[in-house]
Amino acid sequence: MTKIDEALELKVAELVRQTHEAKIPVMVLFEGVAAAGKSRLANELLLALDAKYTHFYATKTPSEEDLRMPFLFPYWKNLPKRGDLTLFFRSWYANLIDYKHHNLKPEIFKDHHLLLTEIKGFEKMLLDDGYRMIKFNVVVDEKKRQEHIQQTKENPLTRWKAQEFEKAIPADIYLDEMTVLMDETKDIAPWHTINYTERGQAVNEMYETLIKELEQALKDKKKKDEKKEVDGQFSEHFETDLFEDTEDEMSKDEYKKLLPELQQRMRELQYALYERKIPMILVYEGMDAAGKGGNIKRVRESLDPTGYEVNAISAPTETELSYHYLWRFATQLPRTGHIEIFDRSWYGRVLVERVEGFASTEEWQRAYEEINDFEKSLTLEGAIVIKFFLVLDKEEQLARFEERQNTPEKQWKITDEDWRNREKWDIYLEASEEMIHKTSKEHAPWVIVPANNKKAARIKALRTIIERCEERLWGVKRY
Amino acid sequence: MTKIDEALELKVAELVRQTHEAKIPVMVLFEGVAAAGKSRLANELLLALDAKYTHFYATKTPSEEDLRMPFLFPYWKNLPKRGDLTLFFRSWYANLIDYKHHNLKPEIFKDHHLLLTEIKGFEKMLLDDGYRMIKFNVVVDEKKRQEHIQQTKENPLTRWKAQEFEKAIPADIYLDEMTVLMDETKDIAPWHTINYTERGQAVNEMYETLIKELEQALKDKKKKDEKKEVDGQFSEHFETDLFEDTEDEMSKDEYKKLLPELQQRMRELQYALYERKIPMILVYEGMDAAGKGGNIKRVRESLDPTGYEVNAISAPTETELSYHYLWRFATQLPRTGHIEIFDRSWYGRVLVERVEGFASTEEWQRAYEEINDFEKSLTLEGAIVIKFFLVLDKEEQLARFEERQNTPEKQWKITDEDWRNREKWDIYLEASEEMIHKTSKEHAPWVIVPANNKKAARIKALRTIIERCEERLWGVKRY
Repeated sequence: MTKIDEALELKVAELVRQTHEAKIPVMVLFEGVAAAGKSRLANELLLALDAKYTHFYATKTPSEEDLRMPFLFPYWKNLPKRGDLTLFFRSWYANLIDYKHHNLKPEIFKDHHLLLTEIKGFEKMLLDDGYRMIKFNVVVDEKKRQEHIQQTKENPLTRWKAQEFEKAIPADIYLDEMTVLMDETKDIAPWHTINYTERGQAVNEMYETLIKELEQALKDKKKKDEKKEVDGQFSEHFETDLFEDTEDEMSKDEYKKLLPELQQRMRELQYALYERKIPMILVYEGMDAAGKGGNIKRVRESLDPTGYEVNAISAPTETELSYHYLWRFATQLPRTGHIEIFDRSWYGRVLVERVEGFASTEEWQRAYEEINDFEKSLTLEGAIVIKFFLVLDKEEQLARFEERQNTPEKQWKITDEDWRNREKWDIYLEASEEMIHKTSKEHAPWVIVPANNKKAARIKALRTIIERCEERLWGVKRY
Repeated sequence: MTKIDEALELKVAELVRQTHEAKIPVMVLFEGVAAAGKSRLANELLLALDAKYTHFYATKTPSEEDLRMPFLFPYWKNLPKRGDLTLFFRSWYANLIDYKHHNLKPEIFKDHHLLLTEIKGFEKMLLDDGYRMIKFNVVVDEKKRQEHIQQTKENPLTRWKAQEFEKAIPADIYLDEMTVLMDETKDIAPWHTINYTERGQAVNEMYETLIKELEQALKDKKKKDEKKEVDGQFSEHFETDLFEDTEDEMSKDEYKKLLPELQQRMRELQYALYERKIPMILVYEGMDAAGKGGNIKRVRESLDPTGYEVNAISAPTETELSYHYLWRFATQLPRTGHIEIFDRSWYGRVLVERVEGFASTEEWQRAYEEINDFEKSLTLEGAIVIKFFLVLDKEEQLARFEERQNTPEKQWKITDEDWRNREKWDIYLEASEEMIHKTSKEHAPWVIVPANNKKAARIKALRTIIERCEERLWGVKRY
């Protein structure tokens, strides 16, 4: 019988202290059939590490409540922050197998290929962002496994646990699925199979693998930090057709007549979405003072507050900065049937973060595809995603800034930062142009809203939302 | 028909900007029978405020998952941070009525008086900490309410909503309960009854109440800030009997024999607690280098990681500091059947925060009772709470510090802060003495663990936990 090598344990502890200090987020996955030794192996690792930055998350068969959120939601919620390490006891892989085996949300996940695509995108995106993913596949001799189940069954205090083992997805089905899944994902981050039949050997093997992976993580991090380049890559001249339709007109009378009618319809549609469990995500971007807040106000004015929420996005907090940039949005997604309104959004990555140099060149350039994938998953999982870009021209912005400055009760709305941003009008415009160009997809197209006339902009937004909802609810497409 | 007074709305918005800047947390409660106008009134307020610091939480009938957490857990989770404002659409009052009417967790909440006690303690504690609580009781003419329900029923898109109204707790039962509850709690923070029969009037009344309350909140805050006094109030001489039994002995052989036996029992008991859905909370406090980490390691060594978690408490983050000091613990409580181990805990309030002056005199003095109430609620709601205080004498601490300093792989464990704390040995001791004296209650007594001998300390902790679990599970009390 092999003894556990304490030197290996100490080495792992030391390396995790180093990844902690180097602010590398680490995810350690434990997959394997029930009673294979996953939990004992995971506990061994937990014991070796400092609880201050070590976390544990166990994937259970999804509850009703879980099913009201996107498939990857629990993993976004339990993502380690930079420098932390999280053990996933059963991960998104076990979750996929649960969805498939129990035929959960069949109307969405017909062939479950979508889930695999999501998993691949999720892993790739995190790895690109410097996350380290160490994947263990725990196997065990079947005779040994049966013995363990038998022991558990014989003790009256643990008998119920044995019943849980028996309720789990049958080992052969799980193993067949995992074989395919591991093969499909091994190139993103490799799988390490650990045989738990001989405990000491298994633990040592786990430690050796971790040592190799963590040492590599530290090296990669250093290399990555060295080559980080920050450049917004703006051109001197560029063309825009954003202002082509800024001249929408809307008389006061027309507005007064239309607004309550559309708002009444919005409220009905909110209830219809709720009943059918369709989530809706509204994204507002646009120039400063374009009237996003006022526009959102008209959209929500007649809504039932128990079914919608507004997320007004400010500069990220320290905590938010210690995660992947999508984290603070992905953890705020609406439950099925709910409406989430984002007043500014994840597009900050390719707007303010690009303009101000908060994101490296590689980061903001990579973001277009990440965002497209993110939104595509949302829509494929059933959400309506509508993105408004409110276009104001430069003179009108000045007029609104000055009005704010000169009206005492509006002064709080205008800050030095607004004036500074105005000086960067051209590069913001270029960033916006490129963003719209690269992220307007059929599943989530940008809706350009001329906003020189606030009333017209509000009516346009309401009409768009109503159309999209009706189209989804009853297939009515308007041209 | 009264018109909504826009000046009032603007005034409320302005005052909430001020409470935001003054970092006053505000909780606005909306209670009332179904279809009384609560949601429309709440939405009116939401529209007036800046979404950046305004939140909305709706209390629903508790799910299975909710019932696995303490009664007040959702409100801890959704507590506004300092400067934010949260609207509670149905609050802990509606929750209490739900528990009572649906007879939830009857084995714990027999006469539901416990819930009222918890509510009172919760409100008082938050108010003492500078939270503002504005409680609206929304009523409506019954004829008008029936009309609204009828309208909702007639529209095919909202019909299901009308059915929800009908499934709600009958209006007369709700009103009877609320009458008693409001009377019982009006002295903690007053109730404001708003009649929604005439909408404009109701909205204006809500705004007027908010203006009065918020103006008062700003005044109170200023007064409170002015009189803040920070004094640890340590005496020059004090007596301690903490060291009376520091001389526990334990031979290596005895330890080697006992440890695996007790650990095996721990694992069985973990499963027994899990099956019976009994949560357990273990708290570790004690001198630096007393061996808390090693002790916890022996306790968890044989546990199933899917059922326990270790919370190693560091200095609070900026986010944590922006809440009530109990927030970061109350949101980390174990689900029923789970074990939560706190390596340092809420007792930091009366230890490090008192010693270092992070808490004002009033704050740390108030904390003893708050903590007693907090732990009492936990135990009354079914948890086993065990608090260990590991006692090391001053010479032994020095020996351990020096050993850490001189052993390369242990150096990370010792910091300048440890040495600085050691200089404050006497006042830490006095704070610990007083803490133990004031918070050792029958429901959650302190267990003093002599820790000069690490092995003896570990065995004592394990034995204590096992005894307490067995006592709870089968009523075996040992003397």
